[in-house]
Amino acid sequence: MKQFLSVKDTSDPADLVRLARDLKKDPFQFENLGKRKTIGLIFLNPSLRTRMSMIKAAQLVGLNVIAFNLNQEGWKIETEDGVIMDGDNAEHINEAIPVISSYCDLLAIRSFPTLTDREYDYSEALLIKIQRLSSVPVINMESATVHPLQSLTDLVTIDELKKVERPKIVLSWAPHPRSLPQSVANSFLEWTLSHGHDITVVQPKGLELAKEFTGNAAVSYNQKEALSEADFVYVKNWSSYNEYGSIYRDPEWIISREKMRVTNEAKLMHCLPVRRNVVISEEILESPQSVVVQQAGNRVCAAQAVLVSLLKENG
Amino acid sequence: MKQFLSVKDTSDPADLVRLARDLKKDPFQFENLGKRKTIGLIFLNPSLRTRMSMIKAAQLVGLNVIAFNLNQEGWKIETEDGVIMDGDNAEHINEAIPVISSYCDLLAIRSFPTLTDREYDYSEALLIKIQRLSSVPVINMESATVHPLQSLTDLVTIDELKKVERPKIVLSWAPHPRSLPQSVANSFLEWTLSHGHDITVVQPKGLELAKEFTGNAAVSYNQKEALSEADFVYVKNWSSYNEYGSIYRDPEWIISREKMRVTNEAKLMHCLPVRRNVVISEEILESPQSVVVQQAGNRVCAAQAVLVSLLKENG
Amino acid sequence: MKQFLSVKDTSDPADLVRLARDLKKDPFQFENLGKRKTIGLIFLNPSLRTRMSMIKAAQLVGLNVIAFNLNQEGWKIETEDGVIMDGDNAEHINEAIPVISSYCDLLAIRSFPTLTDREYDYSEALLIKIQRLSSVPVINMESATVHPLQSLTDLVTIDELKKVERPKIVLSWAPHPRSLPQSVANSFLEWTLSHGHDITVVQPKGLELAKEFTGNAAVSYNQKEALSEADFVYVKNWSSYNEYGSIYRDPEWIISREKMRVTNEAKLMHCLPVRRNVVISEEILESPQSVVVQQAGNRVCAAQAVLVSLLKENG
Repeated sequence: MKQFLSVKDTSDPADLVRLARDLKKDPFQFENLGKRKTIGLIFLNPSLRTRMSMIKAAQLVGLNVIAFNLNQEGWKIETEDGVIMDGDNAEHINEAIPVISSYCDLLAIRSFPTLTDREYDYSEALLIKIQRLSSVPVINMESATVHPLQSLTDLVTIDELKKVERPKIVLSWAPHPRSLPQSVANSFLEWTLSHGHDITVVQPKGLELAKEFTGNAAVSYNQKEALSEADFVYVKNWSSYNEYGSIYRDPEWIISREKMRVTNEAKLMHCLPVRRNVVISEEILESPQSVVVQQAGNRVCAAQAVLVSLLKENG
Repeated sequence: MKQFLSVKDTSDPADLVRLARDLKKDPFQFENLGKRKTIGLIFLNPSLRTRMSMIKAAQLVGLNVIAFNLNQEGWKIETEDGVIMDGDNAEHINEAIPVISSYCDLLAIRSFPTLTDREYDYSEALLIKIQRLSSVPVINMESATVHPLQSLTDLVTIDELKKVERPKIVLSWAPHPRSLPQSVANSFLEWTLSHGHDITVVQPKGLELAKEFTGNAAVSYNQKEALSEADFVYVKNWSSYNEYGSIYRDPEWIISREKMRVTNEAKLMHCLPVRRNVVISEEILESPQSVVVQQAGNRVCAAQAVLVSLLKENG
Repeated sequence: MKQFLSVKDTSDPADLVRLARDLKKDPFQFENLGKRKTIGLIFLNPSLRTRMSMIKAAQLVGLNVIAFNLNQEGWKIETEDGVIMDGDNAEHINEAIPVISSYCDLLAIRSFPTLTDREYDYSEALLIKIQRLSSVPVINMESATVHPLQSLTDLVTIDELKKVERPKIVLSWAPHPRSLPQSVANSFLEWTLSHGHDITVVQPKGLELAKEFTGNAAVSYNQKEALSEADFVYVKNWSSYNEYGSIYRDPEWIISREKMRVTNEAKLMHCLPVRRNVVISEEILESPQSVVVQQAGNRVCAAQAVLVSLLKENG
């Protein structure tokens, strides 16, 4: 693996899933692989699981870690070319990334979408620019349209919990008070489809995800029908792709214990953080059907699999 | 030791004091004890000494450290059960702690009191919830009502500076412009009493600490009388326990060189930070009687003693 | 070397330059020198290159690192003596530095000038106070008037890029929308002059730097004349020393490709961050003449040279 920007960077997601599960069993088998090397973790947005699991995974493979909140601890970043920089942004990404990457052997970055300029976001212009500017392999810790570390984690979690070879997996939209990225949903579809899973995505009319990510997933507008006989229910809010970034609030779409009754005692998944009693009812979130904590715990072995793959091929 | 929430978690404070003093002399004797293990340091409030001394102590015992400013670097945390999370708080502690603790072998947390809801604060509901939610031993880096790492430090400092077997120790309230927790004073009493020291606590009428912490300490309202012949004067402001969280400002209660004259050339202690010329006069704070820097320095060996005790018993 | 506050702390800058260049070739030769030791990095101001390169350099020599944003993660700092601390500042530097340095073997600090009180800034009162308060060697990560880690980097960069023994080096003022310190320019002059370089400094009338730093540099007010036949052009804005801290904005002073034509195909240097199309035109900044990324990359070996020198002499 040369970089980790999206599912396209891995020849077979199943290989990464196997490596991650193997690392979960024996986390120290590559504890010297990263020795004398440094990973830079650059945050333009909040992060709990991604930040902590990346630090943990990096330490498990012997990497030195430099975590950096770019806009808070450094200077506010300008990302557009050709501007006259006489405003608030004091540093241009065209210098920041070459410089930061010169201090590192691997560079991981989190940068959320604008949610106002769909063309810009969906071109992944910023991530592509960062990759081009970096002198070392780049790891996507959530970009404008995808969150591949999360999706690899999701595959690992499904793999260790599935009871049948081809479980029914449903991705259900749920309400949320803020305008959220589509990235987790997008790359969940991309990774599960690429891995050969059968996926149904269900959302209110108008909340359809981009076709490039929906691919050949079954698309439904009837939550009850979609949930029927599901083995895994992945819940996630996203703002509108069509009326880009706009919020739709229909409390009827919350995932509750009642709704889960039609499933095949499905495992309930969510990437976290989750707003209780808005996205998912507290009752079902705290029930044994909910695997959100186990899922979040798998962020470590997933991140470690990515680091090991990158370090092996870019040693 | 199974956890370190308060003095109740240690069978004998004197053992921890001895271990801390031994570690101060020979800080590297357990430098491999924490190898391949991770401590998470979670801050919901500002911290200088606690943060730096915990990182230092953790590094001295070979632990990997992940320090995290939860509300700033992650998502704003909801701590109440049953709420509909459609406001500013994006993450619930019921997920955050299980997830974070799954990344760690030890979990240390700082969370100040509300100072508005006494019943909630004095139940230590949040700390107890965190302990219950965590899959690994929890270390209290200052909670609603106690600050045991500070108090262990205070015992170490008294132990290394005392000239008589049973020194006279006075805890004196002093003025402060803000509403401060009672935690340092509370656990100073709890730890010194538990260690068998003779303590006098002196404060203006109405500023009495909770009886559960005052225990059998002598209680005085006359600062001059209380200070007489003292060997150690521990100065600290706290807001009212009775009129919970309210501020009392009487500049007459400042600790000055003049006031220290009636003591037995007492050592002056304070947990820091201290507001000069409000809580303690600059003149006496910078005099040789002041041991506040030595005291703060002892935070390292105290933290190290706690880490060693926890790692040994939870290996 | 006993400390690293300014060029005055090194007997010969050329020795440090040689050491830095040697460390750049073989970065791991002292990887155990800092073992069992800790460096504290204290930030009172934003930092990207200084922070990341210091962490990287410290890790390369085996030091444990504690990076700390003093005013954000700790308490707001009071630096004046004799004040009654009943305002926003909760902690006095007179305790903070002794305490922090007691946790460390080396202490690095960044603290920008007031730009309102010239006498205070140019006395380096705060840096001198910090050095006096610290129990361990202090490293200046940019103070009120100098930025020696940057200047050592600049010498390294000139040394590895110069084509003639005595290149013509020009320091040119350029416009900027904010009031910036004179520190980078000051210590660039101090270090290059001390190293025996020929320097011309050019700026608009009234923007002259302090004579103590200009020393025997040639002073010009004609940018075109000054740039003529230059081998290195170091571009930097600074606010006025004479009308202390005031901003002068003359867009004519921007460094552009056109202006660089009169040079001897000069290398273009800047400490970064740089405001594009205000200080330097994008066109020339992204051209092969610009060495700003290589220069910033040299921050690591420069910092490492300082750490190695300090660790060797203060072992």
